[in-house]
Amino acid sequence: MHVFLPVDDSSKSFGSELTLDDLFQRNFQVHDPDAKWISGEDVIFQSWDGDVLKVNADSNETELLLKNTTFATFKASKFAISPDLSFVLLGYDVKQHSFLASYLIYNLYTREVRELNPPEVSDSVLQFASWGVHGQQLIYIFENNIYYQTDVQSSSWRLTSSGQEGIIFNGITDWLYEEEVLHTRVAHWWAPDGSRLAYLAINNSLVPNMILPRFTGSLYPRGKEYPYPKMGQINPTVRLCVVTLDGSSLTTELRPPDSFEKSEYYITMVKWVTQERLSVRWVNRPQNMSILSLCDVTTGDCTKKYVLTSEKWLDHQNEEPVFDKDCTKVFITMPLKHGDNGTFNHITMISNQVKLLQKVNLRHLTSGSWEVCQILAYDENTNSVYFLSTEEGSTQRHLYRVSSVDLFHKECLTCSLFKSKCTYYDAVLSPNYKHVLLKCRVRGINIHYIFFIFTNKTLWTKLAVKLRLELIVPADLDETKQYPLLLVLDSAPGGQAVSDSFSLSWDSVLVSSDNVIVARLDGRGSGFQGQRILHEVHQRLGTVDVQDQIMVVEHLMGLPYINDKKVGVYGKAYGGFLSSLLLLSHSSVFKCGIAVAPITNWSLYGSAFSEKYFGSAVKEDHKYQVQLDVSDESILIICSFSATVHFQHSAELVKLLSASNVNYTLQVTIFPDEGHNMDSVRSQQYMLKSVLTFFRHCFKLEEVVVPQTLKEDD
Amino acid sequence: MHVFLPVDDSSKSFGSELTLDDLFQRNFQVHDPDAKWISGEDVIFQSWDGDVLKVNADSNETELLLKNTTFATFKASKFAISPDLSFVLLGYDVKQHSFLASYLIYNLYTREVRELNPPEVSDSVLQFASWGVHGQQLIYIFENNIYYQTDVQSSSWRLTSSGQEGIIFNGITDWLYEEEVLHTRVAHWWAPDGSRLAYLAINNSLVPNMILPRFTGSLYPRGKEYPYPKMGQINPTVRLCVVTLDGSSLTTELRPPDSFEKSEYYITMVKWVTQERLSVRWVNRPQNMSILSLCDVTTGDCTKKYVLTSEKWLDHQNEEPVFDKDCTKVFITMPLKHGDNGTFNHITMISNQVKLLQKVNLRHLTSGSWEVCQILAYDENTNSVYFLSTEEGSTQRHLYRVSSVDLFHKECLTCSLFKSKCTYYDAVLSPNYKHVLLKCRVRGINIHYIFFIFTNKTLWTKLAVKLRLELIVPADLDETKQYPLLLVLDSAPGGQAVSDSFSLSWDSVLVSSDNVIVARLDGRGSGFQGQRILHEVHQRLGTVDVQDQIMVVEHLMGLPYINDKKVGVYGKAYGGFLSSLLLLSHSSVFKCGIAVAPITNWSLYGSAFSEKYFGSAVKEDHKYQVQLDVSDESILIICSFSATVHFQHSAELVKLLSASNVNYTLQVTIFPDEGHNMDSVRSQQYMLKSVLTFFRHCFKLEEVVVPQTLKEDD
Repeated sequence: MHVFLPVDDSSKSFGSELTLDDLFQRNFQVHDPDAKWISGEDVIFQSWDGDVLKVNADSNETELLLKNTTFATFKASKFAISPDLSFVLLGYDVKQHSFLASYLIYNLYTREVRELNPPEVSDSVLQFASWGVHGQQLIYIFENNIYYQTDVQSSSWRLTSSGQEGIIFNGITDWLYEEEVLHTRVAHWWAPDGSRLAYLAINNSLVPNMILPRFTGSLYPRGKEYPYPKMGQINPTVRLCVVTLDGSSLTTELRPPDSFEKSEYYITMVKWVTQERLSVRWVNRPQNMSILSLCDVTTGDCTKKYVLTSEKWLDHQNEEPVFDKDCTKVFITMPLKHGDNGTFNHITMISNQVKLLQKVNLRHLTSGSWEVCQILAYDENTNSVYFLSTEEGSTQRHLYRVSSVDLFHKECLTCSLFKSKCTYYDAVLSPNYKHVLLKCRVRGINIHYIFFIFTNKTLWTKLAVKLRLELIVPADLDETKQYPLLLVLDSAPGGQAVSDSFSLSWDSVLVSSDNVIVARLDGRGSGFQGQRILHEVHQRLGTVDVQDQIMVVEHLMGLPYINDKKVGVYGKAYGGFLSSLLLLSHSSVFKCGIAVAPITNWSLYGSAFSEKYFGSAVKEDHKYQVQLDVSDESILIICSFSATVHFQHSAELVKLLSASNVNYTLQVTIFPDEGHNMDSVRSQQYMLKSVLTFFRHCFKLEEVVVPQTLKEDD
Repeated sequence: MHVFLPVDDSSKSFGSELTLDDLFQRNFQVHDPDAKWISGEDVIFQSWDGDVLKVNADSNETELLLKNTTFATFKASKFAISPDLSFVLLGYDVKQHSFLASYLIYNLYTREVRELNPPEVSDSVLQFASWGVHGQQLIYIFENNIYYQTDVQSSSWRLTSSGQEGIIFNGITDWLYEEEVLHTRVAHWWAPDGSRLAYLAINNSLVPNMILPRFTGSLYPRGKEYPYPKMGQINPTVRLCVVTLDGSSLTTELRPPDSFEKSEYYITMVKWVTQERLSVRWVNRPQNMSILSLCDVTTGDCTKKYVLTSEKWLDHQNEEPVFDKDCTKVFITMPLKHGDNGTFNHITMISNQVKLLQKVNLRHLTSGSWEVCQILAYDENTNSVYFLSTEEGSTQRHLYRVSSVDLFHKECLTCSLFKSKCTYYDAVLSPNYKHVLLKCRVRGINIHYIFFIFTNKTLWTKLAVKLRLELIVPADLDETKQYPLLLVLDSAPGGQAVSDSFSLSWDSVLVSSDNVIVARLDGRGSGFQGQRILHEVHQRLGTVDVQDQIMVVEHLMGLPYINDKKVGVYGKAYGGFLSSLLLLSHSSVFKCGIAVAPITNWSLYGSAFSEKYFGSAVKEDHKYQVQLDVSDESILIICSFSATVHFQHSAELVKLLSASNVNYTLQVTIFPDEGHNMDSVRSQQYMLKSVLTFFRHCFKLEEVVVPQTLKEDD
C-alpha cells in the first residue's frame, strides 16, 4: 500500500513566538496536494512547488504533466486535467464567492490555447466548467443552463433552456442548496460511463428576495437581490432530471416517492449506482423523515430502499450509500442504540434477497459508543467495507476495514502507521481497492496540546458522558502564575471543536505570543459522540449548549493558574449566537467577547437550517432571538455584508445593545463582494488584527480601557 | 425697548469636572423660548417650564395661553397657536428625520380635540401642517399635495394634485432643496394678507435614485430608494406657483427670467413684498450667477431687479431682501471691495427713481473689513435699516441701525447692553419696529475661553489677514506641564468654527475632565472674514484649507505646554474629509483622528453643494477624492446609514485604507431611521462615548494600545 503525504515544510523554529504575520506566510499554510485517483494505480496531484504530477502507486514512477511556470501569469487560477491527460481546463479571473470565472483550454502537447465560450458568445464568464468522465467530455454552466461538448474540438449543445439568472438554476445550486442542503456548488452527476448526466433544476420564483448592499465601486450603489428563504417562508422547489448525452438530449424527470408528491422536500444526495440507476435521498421539509430510493433513469420511477425517521431531526443526509454491483446490498450509516448512552452512527447493510421491493434485511456491521464518520468503499471480492471512525477516541479519525460476512474481522489500518504519531486521517481508496490515499491532518509546532477529559460526576451526571475539552496552554506554562482564559466556540451545531485535526489560527498567536490559555469544548449539541448529545439542542439552541460552556468555564476558573478576572469568549455564526448569549446573560463570567457574523434571530436565517433545529416557525418569535439581560461586558461584533448570515442580524443585536446601553463595538468589513468567510487575505488580516487587539486590551489593559468617567453608570 | 432673554439655569457648580452625562442633563441644555411677534407689541413664547405665555412689550403684562401639563402625554410633540389665539395645532408621533407626524387641533376655550385629516382619510400621517397668517387659516401637506382650510370647522380643499411620493413635491422640499438649497423643509410662502399661497413644485422624475439600507425591524429588510442627484447628474426641476385661496384655486406659474428659460436653475429665495408681488432669487446651476427679480402674481411675469455674478461662486443666496412699501427701494448685501483685503459683504440700497425697469441706482450703506450678517428691517418712517454685523470683531454679532439717508448715522444698539458681557446676538424686530427680541448666545461655565490672533507675517503674508484661532484650555492650566492637543474642524466650508456663540459639547468634556487642549481654526474657506478667504478653496477643497490647519497645528506644537506626541483631529462631513486628509498625508503630525460621516469623494455627494465648490463635474475624478499617502496613524470612521453623506463614502475610504493596511476602525451607527445628525439621544450618547474613549486611548494609552507584535510592520 502506497501512501502520499503533504509536504510539511514549516520553517518556524521551535521556541520563537508565533505572530499574526506568520499565519500569512506561505510556510505556515498547509499545502493541499489535491490528489485524486485517475485509475486503479495512477494518482495525479500538485506538488508544493505547483507542478502537476502523475504517479503510479505500483511502480512509484512519476511523470510531470504540467510545469508550475505554465500558468504563472494567471493569478489565483484553478485548473483540471482532462481524463485523457491531453488538455488542461483553466479558470481565471475567478470572482470571490460567486464562483464566476473565464475558462481556457490548453493543449498539453501542442501548447495551443483556446477559449471556452457558449455558441455565439465571446469573452464569456461561466458559472462552472469541468471535464466529464472520459476522453475530453466537457460541461459548463452559463446563465444557469448546462452546455455539453463531446470533446474539445466539437461544438456545444445546450442541455437545458429553463435557466434564469438568480431564479432557476440547472446543474448548480442556489443559495439554500449550496449553503444548507448539498454544501457544494455542484448539482449534477455523471453516469459512470459518461452517457448521461443527472442534474437538479432548482426553482426560486416564489422565494422572497433578500437584499445585499454593495457600497463601493459605483456612483449609485445598488443592492444585490437574491432569493433567500427564511424560516417558515416559501422554499425553492427542486426537480431531478437525467439527460442523455448521445445527441438526443432526451430528458427524464425522476419522480419523488409517493409520500413526498404533495409535500415539500429536499434532495440531499444523488449518486449513480449503475449506468441506468441512481440512488437518491429525499428529505421532508421538517428534516425528520428521509427516503433513500433507487431510481430507474429509463422510466423515471424511484423505489424506496429505506425510510428513516426521527423524533428530532436527521443528520448525515448527504452521506452517499455504498452499493454492491447488482444493487442487492447497500451500506449506509444509521443511529444504533448503545446502552444508556443513546444512539451512535454505525454501518448498516441493507440487503434484498430477491431484487427490488422484497422484504428488507438489515444487518449492523459495527456497534459501540463511537461513531462511523464515513463509509469509503465496499470490495465485493473480499467482502470488505472500508470506513473512517472515532473508535480510538472521538478526537481521532482512523481507517478501518470490516468484513460484511464476518463481523469479528474488523481491523484498524492506520492505527500503527507512522509510529502512531498521526491520529487524524482523510482517506480515498483507489477504484480497484488496492491502494489508498491518506492525508494526515495532525501537525504541531511550538504549541503543546493537552487534553483533559472530564469525569466529574457531579457536573455531568445528567449527560453521563465525557465531554471533549481542549486546553491550549503556552509552552512554558508556569502553574504558579495566572493566565487569561479564552473560550473559542464552534460555528455550527453538530460539529467538533476539539479534535486531533491540525489547526493554526489567531488563537495560536494569543497562546504563543500573549500567554493566553485557549479552551474549546464540545458540549451538548456537538457531533461525533452519539445522537443523544447532538439532539439535546433540539428546539432549544442557545440553552443547554450555553449551560455546558458556562459550567466548564466556571470549573476552569477554579484552577489556580487561570485568572478569573480575565475570561473572554469568541464565536462565529452559531458561535456568535452563543457568545452573545454568554456575554449578555445576567451573571456572565466573561469580561469581554467577540461575535463574528452572529446569528441573533433564527427566524431571520435560512429555512433549511433553522427549521432543522427548531421545526417549522411558530408564532412565539422571541424563542429564536437573542434575549438581553443586564450586562457590563464589552462586546465586539464583527460582520460583513455576507450573503449567508446577513448584516441584519448584527443590526438587530446592536439595536438591542444600544437600547440597553451595553458597551459594544460594531466592526463592519466592507470589502467589495466579500463573502461570509471574508475570503480576501486583506480582510482576514484586518479582522484577525482586530480580534487580537480586542483580546489584548481585554486581558491586559482593563485598568485603562475604561476611563474613570465612563464606568458602569454611563 | 424691552428685552427677553432665555433662562440661564445651569446648576453645575464651578470647579467640578464636566462629564459626558452632564451634557445630557436638562440643566445643561440651552432652553430656546421660541419667541415670536404676533403683533407690534405682543410676543408669545414658551417658558423653561413648558408653559406658553403671551407678553406685551409695552405693559409687560403676561397671559398664560397654554399650561405645560395640557399635552404632557404626547411625547416629543410640537405645537403652534392659531393667529386668533383660540386653537392649538399639535403634532405628535413625529418621525425622526422624515418629519412625518399626526396632528390634533385643540380648542383653548372648550378643550375640545379634533383630528386633522384629509377628506375621507382617517388616522392620517401628514408631512407638514401649520396655521396661516390670520384667524384659523390652516394648510397641511399629505402625499406631496397641499390642502387648505379657511378655518378649523371648514372642510379641506386640495390645492395641488400633481404630488407623487418621493418624486413630485408640492410646498415642501425634496432632499436637495432641503439640505443644499433652501435649508428648510418649508417650500411655501403666505401672502401678507393670507389671500394667496406661493409654493414650489419640485419634480424629481429624472433624478437617479440612491438606496439607503434599513436593516432592522422586518424579516426581509428593504432599502429605501430616493432621488439624490450627485455631482453632474440630472437635477430636479422646479416651478414656482401662486394659488389663490378664495375658493377658485386659480394657480399662476411664475416664469423664470429670460436668461434662465433654457438652462437649469435653483430658486433660492421667495419673499412676498406686497399682496400681489413676490421677490424671487434665481441662481444658475454652477451657482455663479443670480437674478433677484420682482414677480407679479396676476400676470406671472418676473422683472429683473439685480443680477449678481462671481468668478467663483455666490454666497448668501437665501438672504431675504428688504423692500420699502412701494418697492422702489430694496436692501441687500453685496460683496464690497475693501483695500487689499478683498471683498466684504455690505448693505447696498438699490433704488429706481421711477417704478420698474428704470436705470438702477446703487448705494452702499456700510463698508469696512467686516461683514453684515443679516439685514433685519427697514423702517420707512425713520429711514432706518436694522442689521447684525461683525464690526466689533469677527467672532461677535451685534445689532446696528444705519440711516439710509445719512450714512454717518450708524450706531450699535447692543454693544453696551448688559455691561458688554454679551457679545453674540440674534435679533427679531417687532412689526412696528418699536421693539426687538434679542437672544444672547454667550454663556460660560467652568471653561476658560482664550483667543489668540495670529499675526505671524512669515506664515500669513500670502493671505495678509488674521485668522481666527480658538484654544480651549483646562481651567487650571499649568504651563510647565504638557497637554494633548485636539484640533476640531468645522463641518462645512463658509462656516465659522470660532465665535463668541456658546457651545458645550463633548470636547468641553475632554478639556474639563481629561486636561486636553482643544483648538479650532477658521482658515481659508471659512466665512465672515471677507470673500477672499472664503473663495480660496474654489475648485480646491482639501488643499489650502488643509495647509492652514497644518500650519497652525505645527505652530501650536512648538508651544511649551503642548505635547507634540499627542495631537489628534476631529471632523464631520466636510470636516471628516479634512481630517481624513490630515491623517493620511505622508508627513502627518497627527497621532490619531476621527472622521464622522466623512465625504471622501465629492462626485458622490449632492450636486448643488459639490458643483458650487468645484463647478460642473469634469473627467479627472481623482480631484474630488481622498487620496491616500503612507500613514501610521489610527483613524476612527463613524458613520450611519445617512440620507445626506452616504455610507458609500466611508465604504470607499475603508476600501482605500484596507488596501494600504492603515490601522482604522469603522464604527457604524445603525439606529433605525437614523439621520445624518444621529438624532436620537441614544445614538448621540453612544457616538460621543466612542469619540471620548478613542481620544482618551490615543492621548493617554499609547504605550499599550498598540501591542508589541502589532507595530508598524503589520
